[in-house]
Amino acid sequence: MGQVAWKALFLSLFDYKTEKYVIAKNKKVGVLYRVVQLSILAYLVGWVFVVKKGYQDTDTSLQSSVITKLKGVAFTNTSELGERLWDVADYVIPPQGESVFFVMTNLIVTPNQRQATCPEVGRTEPLDSQTPGKLGSSSIPDALCEEDTDCQEGKAVVAGNGVKTGRCLKDRGSTRGTCEVLAWCPVEKRSKPKKPLLGSAENFTVYIKNSVRFPKFKFSKMNVLATDNESYLKSCRYSQEHHPYCPIFVLGDIVRWAGGNFQEMALQGGVIGIQIEWNCDLDKAPSECNPHYSFSRLDNKSAESSISSGYNFRFAKYYRDAEGVDYRTLIKAYGIRFDVMVNGKAGKFNIIPTIINISSGLALMGAGAFFCDLVLLYLIKKSNFYRGKKYEEVKSSSRKSLSSPTLNGNQSPDQLDGL
Amino acid sequence: MGQVAWKALFLSLFDYKTEKYVIAKNKKVGVLYRVVQLSILAYLVGWVFVVKKGYQDTDTSLQSSVITKLKGVAFTNTSELGERLWDVADYVIPPQGESVFFVMTNLIVTPNQRQATCPEVGRTEPLDSQTPGKLGSSSIPDALCEEDTDCQEGKAVVAGNGVKTGRCLKDRGSTRGTCEVLAWCPVEKRSKPKKPLLGSAENFTVYIKNSVRFPKFKFSKMNVLATDNESYLKSCRYSQEHHPYCPIFVLGDIVRWAGGNFQEMALQGGVIGIQIEWNCDLDKAPSECNPHYSFSRLDNKSAESSISSGYNFRFAKYYRDAEGVDYRTLIKAYGIRFDVMVNGKAGKFNIIPTIINISSGLALMGAGAFFCDLVLLYLIKKSNFYRGKKYEEVKSSSRKSLSSPTLNGNQSPDQLDGL
Amino acid sequence: MGQVAWKALFLSLFDYKTEKYVIAKNKKVGVLYRVVQLSILAYLVGWVFVVKKGYQDTDTSLQSSVITKLKGVAFTNTSELGERLWDVADYVIPPQGESVFFVMTNLIVTPNQRQATCPEVGRTEPLDSQTPGKLGSSSIPDALCEEDTDCQEGKAVVAGNGVKTGRCLKDRGSTRGTCEVLAWCPVEKRSKPKKPLLGSAENFTVYIKNSVRFPKFKFSKMNVLATDNESYLKSCRYSQEHHPYCPIFVLGDIVRWAGGNFQEMALQGGVIGIQIEWNCDLDKAPSECNPHYSFSRLDNKSAESSISSGYNFRFAKYYRDAEGVDYRTLIKAYGIRFDVMVNGKAGKFNIIPTIINISSGLALMGAGAFFCDLVLLYLIKKSNFYRGKKYEEVKSSSRKSLSSPTLNGNQSPDQLDGL
Repeated sequence: MGQVAWKALFLSLFDYKTEKYVIAKNKKVGVLYRVVQLSILAYLVGWVFVVKKGYQDTDTSLQSSVITKLKGVAFTNTSELGERLWDVADYVIPPQGESVFFVMTNLIVTPNQRQATCPEVGRTEPLDSQTPGKLGSSSIPDALCEEDTDCQEGKAVVAGNGVKTGRCLKDRGSTRGTCEVLAWCPVEKRSKPKKPLLGSAENFTVYIKNSVRFPKFKFSKMNVLATDNESYLKSCRYSQEHHPYCPIFVLGDIVRWAGGNFQEMALQGGVIGIQIEWNCDLDKAPSECNPHYSFSRLDNKSAESSISSGYNFRFAKYYRDAEGVDYRTLIKAYGIRFDVMVNGKAGKFNIIPTIINISSGLALMGAGAFFCDLVLLYLIKKSNFYRGKKYEEVKSSSRKSLSSPTLNGNQSPDQLDGL
Repeated sequence: MGQVAWKALFLSLFDYKTEKYVIAKNKKVGVLYRVVQLSILAYLVGWVFVVKKGYQDTDTSLQSSVITKLKGVAFTNTSELGERLWDVADYVIPPQGESVFFVMTNLIVTPNQRQATCPEVGRTEPLDSQTPGKLGSSSIPDALCEEDTDCQEGKAVVAGNGVKTGRCLKDRGSTRGTCEVLAWCPVEKRSKPKKPLLGSAENFTVYIKNSVRFPKFKFSKMNVLATDNESYLKSCRYSQEHHPYCPIFVLGDIVRWAGGNFQEMALQGGVIGIQIEWNCDLDKAPSECNPHYSFSRLDNKSAESSISSGYNFRFAKYYRDAEGVDYRTLIKAYGIRFDVMVNGKAGKFNIIPTIINISSGLALMGAGAFFCDLVLLYLIKKSNFYRGKKYEEVKSSSRKSLSSPTLNGNQSPDQLDGL
Repeated sequence: MGQVAWKALFLSLFDYKTEKYVIAKNKKVGVLYRVVQLSILAYLVGWVFVVKKGYQDTDTSLQSSVITKLKGVAFTNTSELGERLWDVADYVIPPQGESVFFVMTNLIVTPNQRQATCPEVGRTEPLDSQTPGKLGSSSIPDALCEEDTDCQEGKAVVAGNGVKTGRCLKDRGSTRGTCEVLAWCPVEKRSKPKKPLLGSAENFTVYIKNSVRFPKFKFSKMNVLATDNESYLKSCRYSQEHHPYCPIFVLGDIVRWAGGNFQEMALQGGVIGIQIEWNCDLDKAPSECNPHYSFSRLDNKSAESSISSGYNFRFAKYYRDAEGVDYRTLIKAYGIRFDVMVNGKAGKFNIIPTIINISSGLALMGAGAFFCDLVLLYLIKKSNFYRGKKYEEVKSSSRKSLSSPTLNGNQSPDQLDGL
């Protein structure tokens, strides 16, 4: 018998087992189920496949390289600096043309600073000309003194420019004075101009060269149009409507699109984000994979407190005089920092995500059927009857030969839960 | 009766309900179903578990720190600069050794620029020596003039170096000339050498120190081998075959592996990406978690138009003479920018993704059964018969006592859809 | 008949089909199934919904802008540099206040380097004062020579500072000497101080301004408190317990929290990561979306080999003397690089992930039922009986009129696999 039994066992492996269904001739639940099915189908086709392109394998880890190049000159004529022309090497920091670049639009210059001692009055309002001898109200509190002992020698001035020498410098007849400090002297004066020095930077242009590569699909593309018309690339200016693929941007336009006012930002400084988004459907032609630019202000303009507005930093140019002594020009630079941020996604048809999305849609159908079952078995009038039909009670105590009578029709009246 | 009913209800909660199956003794569909099952199992085990390591929890948000350090000196002897030695502080910009660094390989120096007036002839071909007095053909169109009124005072030259003074400078006897500009004078001349100045940068080396940390698993690793043999780390040079874990790279090698030609790139500039990929299976020993390097050219070399090839930028060194007047040396630097990009993924066994992946595999089996059902019920010869067996029609109008005769065997001939 | 049949077909579309279940009155399996169901429910509610917030749509692609500003001055008095005050423009590199900044804490200055010839003894221990004329043991091997032919003219010294001139410079009476090189002379001497020059940088503060934006939800926030109390923002210092939302950090604290020792790191250099994490539940009030700071040391401190510890780089300041000859001051800067890294995640209720997570939970229930089926059908005593009930064998050879007797009760004893 062993051999026969094994053969039967093997053959039975290829019997197909399929769930037994009960057809409930209840049109209400039937319509409900079809509605649920159609909703899921609509969601699957409309959202998952058409909108989210669920049939595609995606790559979001793009490799990107950004090269930026500014163009433009500005002429200024101030009492402090005289006639001066500013070109790219003067106002772009750092000069390398990376994805983050800063355009200096305003500056406070403190020339000829040397290591020496001088009064710590910097960073305050300039001495009032009407009442000479009176210090500005917002001067550095830690540097105020009445006598020498207020200026402890060797201690750095909090939020100041130097180390106290131990002397209190007072104007004649005045009781309060300022500590003398060892610092780069003279210290910087806070005398911010009311107008940006390089307001004409609004007309400067920046050429942004961005090439991206999706390693998974070995696909490369550049934001510069592959065109024969080289003069177009030299003369065009980006605008979303007319020149969406021109890589040259006017700074003033960028700031305006980001919702800022160039002259205001030029005075106080700020940070602008230039997002380049690549959203490529590689099932289509490569020429349909194009960058989309958007602009936003990254520093919080709305913040009221002066401590958190604007963007500036200090740097110095170092010189050495004939005697070999170092001196420097300190520059507090205000300006606009541009951060070019690239992100992207490429998709291409792939069988695996397609199958996974279809299966999860079918699993969702199972959830729909479960919901309709609840309605059929517990919420409608004849649910008791359907419960009896759906659930077939078997008792292990019944012998095989007797199992048929208990087969069907007997429903337990208390099956509350079909879960 | 209430108490008994509640007790029965409570007990019935622990009745186990299981779907009723119909065994169709149809070997064709049976074999089909087994094939589908095996395919899904193979996909689950082979792809999801073995290839994609679906039993692991992954962390892709790695923290990375890159320190780079270049070594090498180059000697040049040109008519313009004389004998000159270039070391790291001269040719690496910026000097900080961050993940993006630039090696200057070629340069155009315009020394001793001062704020003054001069003709705007810069950025053109040098004046033709055969026909003195004739301007280069590619000179700046906006700076060409025939009389003073062509040079509107105070207007910046488009794509030029300065602001027009209102004078048109002409050679004797010539009708056309160039506007005079206020600028950093003399303006830069376009006289690109045919050969890179620092071609020997090909032999420079860069030491890349990269340490990564996967915060989710508290796992840290460095690309520098934990070896006692310090002299190995000083003398080794990376090569994929022989020294895959040596952190010192020869620049010429990097460019070659990225598919470039060093001498060509040194002349025009370019951008090279150095990808470091960490793909760590933390279920294995930490020593098996090693970096993998790859190299690619990031600027689009294939682009034909001159506007989009190469990499260069301008910067200036500022000096002050004895009279306190600033002057500068303008340098247009060509060279290779290297972007070190680190990404990685670590995985470790975790029960939750394991369960999720197994369940989604089982859900997939449900989809397979659905597909086989379609075949059984609508595509094979006896589908009518199986449809009758699978679907049991019940009518709510039938009384409980009468429900048995309608139980089975009656199939509606028009059940087209088993969905 | 056609019209009637079509009508019946159409109506049958709205019959509701529901799986037929067998109730097994087996308490063991019933309890098991309920336990499995409860576990899945607990997992779904507890883990997926409460912990992982599975009902939310998430956005991880945040736009971030970081502005940093250092404050503090240090006074040093060394034999080499004399009395000198260091301020922000002196010790912060680069000065722009970006997300990566370097604070110089120690330096080796080599002033007045000029293009000339000199012995290549740089980067070695200083000549031993007890035994004058003897070279340091760790001098550059490639620069050692016994006669002129050891110094091949025009060849760069490996790991050295210049190009050999072909002369071997020997001290009187000594047999071994050093090659003469053309380089920036004098070459740098390795004489690292035992104490960091700017150890007081421990008290410097850095103000970190970080504004983030989640583009998907159009939500912006800043790490600087929207407070009226401006003086709080000027005087507070971050600490996790007392001032978790103060944006001003003391450098010494940062290093300590990262597990480092400031004075040690100031001597050798190092890299510190400042992570800012935004984990925002936008279903709650915006004021509950706050940054969380963490600090870690990014360069591998534990690495023993000297080649991989610390952080330093070389840069030069260029000067021009009265004769127009360039000279420079070479600075080897040691210090701490701070990398501010921002990442974040925002979540907001969305119906689609909610549905998907519920469905996948239900699919998991299917997997649980499958597991209980296995127990019921193959592992318990009466599994044979249940197998017969669950599986209803039908034979296609049986005629429709005869199908009823084979309907039920006949179980094949060899159905091993219910899969």
